[in-house]
Amino acid sequence: MPDNRHAPTRNLACVTVQAQGGGPSAAEAARTIAAAANAATLATLTADGDPWASLVAYGLVGGTPVLCVSNLAEHGRNLAGDPRASMSIVAASDDTDPLAGSRVTLAGTVTRPAVAESDAARQAYLDAVPGAHSYLDFSDFTLWLLQVQRVRWVGGYGRMESVTGKDYHAAAPDPVALGSARALAHLNADHADALVAMARAFGGYPDTDSAECASIDRYGLHLRVRTARGEARARVDFPSALDSPDQLRSATADLARAALRRR
Amino acid sequence: MPDNRHAPTRNLACVTVQAQGGGPSAAEAARTIAAAANAATLATLTADGDPWASLVAYGLVGGTPVLCVSNLAEHGRNLAGDPRASMSIVAASDDTDPLAGSRVTLAGTVTRPAVAESDAARQAYLDAVPGAHSYLDFSDFTLWLLQVQRVRWVGGYGRMESVTGKDYHAAAPDPVALGSARALAHLNADHADALVAMARAFGGYPDTDSAECASIDRYGLHLRVRTARGEARARVDFPSALDSPDQLRSATADLARAALRRR
Repeated sequence: MPDNRHAPTRNLACVTVQAQGGGPSAAEAARTIAAAANAATLATLTADGDPWASLVAYGLVGGTPVLCVSNLAEHGRNLAGDPRASMSIVAASDDTDPLAGSRVTLAGTVTRPAVAESDAARQAYLDAVPGAHSYLDFSDFTLWLLQVQRVRWVGGYGRMESVTGKDYHAAAPDPVALGSARALAHLNADHADALVAMARAFGGYPDTDSAECASIDRYGLHLRVRTARGEARARVDFPSALDSPDQLRSATADLARAALRRR
Repeated sequence: MPDNRHAPTRNLACVTVQAQGGGPSAAEAARTIAAAANAATLATLTADGDPWASLVAYGLVGGTPVLCVSNLAEHGRNLAGDPRASMSIVAASDDTDPLAGSRVTLAGTVTRPAVAESDAARQAYLDAVPGAHSYLDFSDFTLWLLQVQRVRWVGGYGRMESVTGKDYHAAAPDPVALGSARALAHLNADHADALVAMARAFGGYPDTDSAECASIDRYGLHLRVRTARGEARARVDFPSALDSPDQLRSATADLARAALRRR
């Protein structure tokens, strides 16, 4: 990130554009959404070529989803008949508007795991769905890998991007995602002043009246800010990317102290 | 329901089978799941006939889902190109195993609302997704009705049934669904003894050691019971079907009193 991101005064329009560009890439966001869940909706094709939506559980080997479906179930018969499939995974959200949250579609074709892949696929599914031990080895259940060829990430209204299968696989899930919900709740509950100071000093909104943290990732924070001019979305970055949820507390505290010093 | 359902002693095997048959029909369960949510995953067909899974919000006119999608979005282009579609709707659940919960697939084809249907469709979508007022009338958004021709309901492991479009439309959502989560939490938190008594007296498990309420519907309660023989699912019915969430408290209290009298 250029040094001037943290300059206290600057052209607001430019800052806003720059701030919106901050945060994880679409490929990283897609990997993070996929890594955080164990349920998705699968789209398959019936024998007539009709689209069929159905709930599935999944594990991951890298970014490759592992499914375990009954051959007797409609989606099991569909995959056996036509390997084309896609999966929609929705990030957990407490927003009442379902379209305000993040989600990703992973599209491609399914294959049966090769012998060398079979143990890892089996274990990935069990790690994600522990209850599967009771049926995973039944002869009427089949493991499938979704070979992801194309990805569509949507981060909420007006935030969306297509990602190639190659870029999706090259990216990594956010390593702080596991601790971010707790850190976010803590910031919003106990550190409203620090969030306002961050938005004013580093977020490009020196006239911020109130601010809340909308999300945290390894690169920094998205803030929802309110000013006399209206509401806006601001971005504040950590000085360097984090590698572990353990770093969240000190990184946000450092950012808060730096912002409060600028008041 | 036959009178002997509430007899205190009977053949356990028969009772279990009968108990599993209790509760709402698959068509009613499907209507209830659809009525409780405002988000689903839509499966559509790309120009190549590939299946495409994507998150949508929806409203309902009767049992008919109303979608409002951007013509610029992939699923919007897909629907314009091929009207075949299905929707997977997943009931809210706090079970860590996603496949333990209830869900439904509604499949059919989309149509544009006729002039006479248009106001109702628009209002149904706005009722479900209030934030849509800001984009519903944009020229690049289109309202679609999913004409449901076939339904697959899954109530968890081993509980599933297909439903015709006709039966789905003829059924009604459970009128007590809105209050059932609160009633369920109250029963499990404060009335463990009453649940054990219900399972022993009316659920077919006279040797119940502990019981918790798994779900409540207008016809009665599903219980998870533990006995020295293992765990089981029991069904206890109200004397007559309820018509409003307001009746839940007195109906469950009456059932508890009747069960406790039999001890």
